Amino acid sequence: MLRVYLSGEIHTDWRDQITEGAAGLDIRFDGPVTDHGASDDCGVAILGAEDDKYWHDHKGAMLNAIRTRKGLADADVVVVRFGEKYKQWNAAFDAGQAAALGKSLIVLQQPEHDHALKEVDAAALAVAREPAQVVQILRYVLTGQLPG
Amino acid sequence: MLRVYLSGEIHTDWRDQITEGAAGLDIRFDGPVTDHGASDDCGVAILGAEDDKYWHDHKGAMLNAIRTRKGLADADVVVVRFGEKYKQWNAAFDAGQAAALGKSLIVLQQPEHDHALKEVDAAALAVAREPAQVVQILRYVLTGQLPG
Amino acid sequence: MLRVYLSGEIHTDWRDQITEGAAGLDIRFDGPVTDHGASDDCGVAILGAEDDKYWHDHKGAMLNAIRTRKGLADADVVVVRFGEKYKQWNAAFDAGQAAALGKSLIVLQQPEHDHALKEVDAAALAVAREPAQVVQILRYVLTGQLPG
Amino acid sequence: MLRVYLSGEIHTDWRDQITEGAAGLDIRFDGPVTDHGASDDCGVAILGAEDDKYWHDHKGAMLNAIRTRKGLADADVVVVRFGEKYKQWNAAFDAGQAAALGKSLIVLQQPEHDHALKEVDAAALAVAREPAQVVQILRYVLTGQLPG
Amino acid sequence: MLRVYLSGEIHTDWRDQITEGAAGLDIRFDGPVTDHGASDDCGVAILGAEDDKYWHDHKGAMLNAIRTRKGLADADVVVVRFGEKYKQWNAAFDAGQAAALGKSLIVLQQPEHDHALKEVDAAALAVAREPAQVVQILRYVLTGQLPG
Amino acid sequence: MLRVYLSGEIHTDWRDQITEGAAGLDIRFDGPVTDHGASDDCGVAILGAEDDKYWHDHKGAMLNAIRTRKGLADADVVVVRFGEKYKQWNAAFDAGQAAALGKSLIVLQQPEHDHALKEVDAAALAVAREPAQVVQILRYVLTGQLPG
Amino acid sequence: MLRVYLSGEIHTDWRDQITEGAAGLDIRFDGPVTDHGASDDCGVAILGAEDDKYWHDHKGAMLNAIRTRKGLADADVVVVRFGEKYKQWNAAFDAGQAAALGKSLIVLQQPEHDHALKEVDAAALAVAREPAQVVQILRYVLTGQLPG
Amino acid sequence: MLRVYLSGEIHTDWRDQITEGAAGLDIRFDGPVTDHGASDDCGVAILGAEDDKYWHDHKGAMLNAIRTRKGLADADVVVVRFGEKYKQWNAAFDAGQAAALGKSLIVLQQPEHDHALKEVDAAALAVAREPAQVVQILRYVLTGQLPG
Repeated sequence: MLRVYLSGEIHTDWRDQITEGAAGLDIRFDGPVTDHGASDDCGVAILGAEDDKYWHDHKGAMLNAIRTRKGLADADVVVVRFGEKYKQWNAAFDAGQAAALGKSLIVLQQPEHDHALKEVDAAALAVAREPAQVVQILRYVLTGQLPG
Repeated sequence: MLRVYLSGEIHTDWRDQITEGAAGLDIRFDGPVTDHGASDDCGVAILGAEDDKYWHDHKGAMLNAIRTRKGLADADVVVVRFGEKYKQWNAAFDAGQAAALGKSLIVLQQPEHDHALKEVDAAALAVAREPAQVVQILRYVLTGQLPG
Repeated sequence: MLRVYLSGEIHTDWRDQITEGAAGLDIRFDGPVTDHGASDDCGVAILGAEDDKYWHDHKGAMLNAIRTRKGLADADVVVVRFGEKYKQWNAAFDAGQAAALGKSLIVLQQPEHDHALKEVDAAALAVAREPAQVVQILRYVLTGQLPG
Repeated sequence: MLRVYLSGEIHTDWRDQITEGAAGLDIRFDGPVTDHGASDDCGVAILGAEDDKYWHDHKGAMLNAIRTRKGLADADVVVVRFGEKYKQWNAAFDAGQAAALGKSLIVLQQPEHDHALKEVDAAALAVAREPAQVVQILRYVLTGQLPG
Repeated sequence: MLRVYLSGEIHTDWRDQITEGAAGLDIRFDGPVTDHGASDDCGVAILGAEDDKYWHDHKGAMLNAIRTRKGLADADVVVVRFGEKYKQWNAAFDAGQAAALGKSLIVLQQPEHDHALKEVDAAALAVAREPAQVVQILRYVLTGQLPG
Repeated sequence: MLRVYLSGEIHTDWRDQITEGAAGLDIRFDGPVTDHGASDDCGVAILGAEDDKYWHDHKGAMLNAIRTRKGLADADVVVVRFGEKYKQWNAAFDAGQAAALGKSLIVLQQPEHDHALKEVDAAALAVAREPAQVVQILRYVLTGQLPG
Repeated sequence: MLRVYLSGEIHTDWRDQITEGAAGLDIRFDGPVTDHGASDDCGVAILGAEDDKYWHDHKGAMLNAIRTRKGLADADVVVVRFGEKYKQWNAAFDAGQAAALGKSLIVLQQPEHDHALKEVDAAALAVAREPAQVVQILRYVLTGQLPG
Repeated sequence: MLRVYLSGEIHTDWRDQITEGAAGLDIRFDGPVTDHGASDDCGVAILGAEDDKYWHDHKGAMLNAIRTRKGLADADVVVVRFGEKYKQWNAAFDAGQAAALGKSLIVLQQPEHDHALKEVDAAALAVAREPAQVVQILRYVLTGQLPG
């Protein structure tokens, strides 16, 4: 079985596209909590409110780290998607952890970000543009089958 | 001796501020090549031109990775500065590597980025706003002396 | 599946509260032998009596270490509870091992111990006050669901 | 050269006794900041005040962790002293880290704590009662010379 | 269960001979994609054509590395076969990775290559001449049964 | 499940005593090939005769190492038995590997060997005299139940 | 200081070209014994003759491995040169070890070997054609200076 | 510099022969305390007498382990000598630790022990009969020079 962690952008349905496209392959997919509100507020919702926004964020980020660490540690392959918007530093941060842990890294991003992502791409084994390509990679890696 | 790697933003003189502020302390500082042009073009300048901008960037990013890996591997402390502009995914990428390698991470950034950097900050041992604070941290860590 | 090791205080039913509260989640819980007498005397009961109380204790602590090491090594998450009484150095010792092994650490303790536990808390991803909060964290980490 | 980290109790002069007793041996000693006030307040003194005592403590503990991690990582031998008073959970926490990192652990403590410390002692290569014994151990380890 | 990775030469049926010979043993076999064309072209078939043959090859080699890394990381035993023809540097490269990862290495090669392979053989636990010998080794390792 | 590797002496039925005594516990036992003749001759039987007794032995020892490495790597607990006779350096060698790999080590030996085994015992979590004690330890570690 | 291990082809003066070209840079170079005869015969010259050529080679390869392991383990950067002739499996074997150990790998080879070396190149941070390019890379990595 | 740990037999002058023979080479030698009485009694001499001979031995073995661990951890090469007499389980135990730590192992022993040491030898890179051969190996490894 291949363990694949799907990191990064949470506003489009790219995870579903990959998961559905890979149906039938011996893969287990993991990823972060994709409910943006829950992800931001989990810390204070469970452990109590904070006056200071910094600590509000901090408590949430720490809880989310429990899930991320587990997902990255268990993964054979880490796919990191950079979307069109936002800073997405957490995506690059996950990519850095994946690289240092020796995981096979696949980056999913559009060409306009090529220059800004060149250090991340340099640590990746593939740079894909579409979720369908990630599915094709995973299928090829597991079965040797190419598309078409 | 403390080994400190100064990662991230290369357009202001924050590295100099820290290095000069820490004069007299038993610290060795390392960091990336900060000549932007050289950093972008090193790959093709040494290993030959590429028609495709993607591979132009790629060859350069790979050479820079030799320096970054060495710097991160040798470091006890990694300071990552996020500036006002640009995507700075390489900074977050270095922070992820540092975290996964168990290095002590110090983030240097302004409050307007607190929310976007919350996952990175959650892995840090300090979030500083000014280079002078980084110097104060390093002095305290080495000598126990507090400012003022 | 998430592996959770429940370390620390053995005089109240906090482990049961967590285990029961987390029923239905894909978690395997482990922990130390919680029969205080057995835990203290296991060494001499199996390997022979000692005249010197120090070696009596030592032989028992060594046998218990077989279980603790296995539990910590296998764990994704280590929850360490500090109770109201006793020195509880073994709890802090387990927390130190968990931190050095890169496990996600959750501390369960009352506010009056905040200052004394600040170094342990600084290595934790969550500081909870009630077993129910630990359950809520585990549920959130596995399912993304928040309480309420 | 032997690197020795002296962890734990900071209210008596045991570190000086060991350092002076070991004069002439090829040892480098490290340890935490022993100025109690500085150690408690370093976080807010450098990074800004906190309303909440918990975060006040937290910021300080994080900064101190930079020093502790470096000291433990570099050490061949970690000596942990448990004094007469206080919870001293940070001492046990350091001992746990040292054990998990495979460092040679020496515990320095009085017999009345033997039972409470049995798990820590079980991971140690020596349990000493007096600083002078630690000096004798270090001299023996480096030179083969016994006292007397 | 024993995990065995079958690396190297892809032009004869040696993998089938081993897999069939080992039928009934508790072994999981893995190996590279053995469809030569697919292996060479997978990169451009999935991620887009390249003008430069070097990058064409590169993109394919990177995708194949996802499979190789997973196979080597999961393996208990790595069998590397050197055939009669070609450079087969990828076989020796896999052997080097296996050795550095501490895997049990079995080399399968003919005597005329003994001198050229002496460094690789020196890191191996067995040098076999025929696939049937590899089967006999695996059977012995798992069951203690010798041939004949 | 607990993985236990039973290393050392192969002339008495101590492995059977432990395996049978531990029936019903969630343990998987592994160990070396205990057919002395097969163990000595496996190398030449599979890979071809050697004129020199040294290389005859060497080829066999290398094949046995495939099994030993796998067994030790997978084990949580390594039990090493030293019998009455022979040099048994392989037993001590396995114990050294187990210690360096951080496995929980149990030594099974008679008191007349205490002095000669003091370095090995010093790395062990238990020194037992009878196979039944090993069973009692394993039962206690898994269930908390003491004998009698 | 940068530690660079120069692996591979031993029949031309490429090592001298690099070492001399890099004069003045803070680099320590290591590499294998380049006296072909000594390298082949060291085993029997020191440890006694062997009738069988296989064991003659084996004893030599084992001694050379002491040097290679030390050189690779200490290196920050491993340069592997593939020459025009011979199988050079030891070069690819060293490259595999370097990759698995996380070293920065530079491959030095001519374009006609690009296809055969694609798996090795895919693990490298640079593929150079001339020793002078390796010097330029090392100078850039250490000083940020580009050629010309 | 090469770090060499000389483990095993302490009743003949083989360490002196090697150290003196290697004069002028860039090597640092380490080894156990070779004063038999001190080595046996160090524990009780420093930490207090024990009634039970087992604990007397234990306390000494633990102190000696501080030195052995440091020596093995720092070593590039571990030489283990097995003499004519005694059980010498500590020598085989050190060899096992060295093997598991990935150190280059050289065994120094007489042919009558070849069969009994075959598992240890199988993990070694050289089996020497005389201290002079160890010197020749070290000289060759460092300088490429062969004897004669």
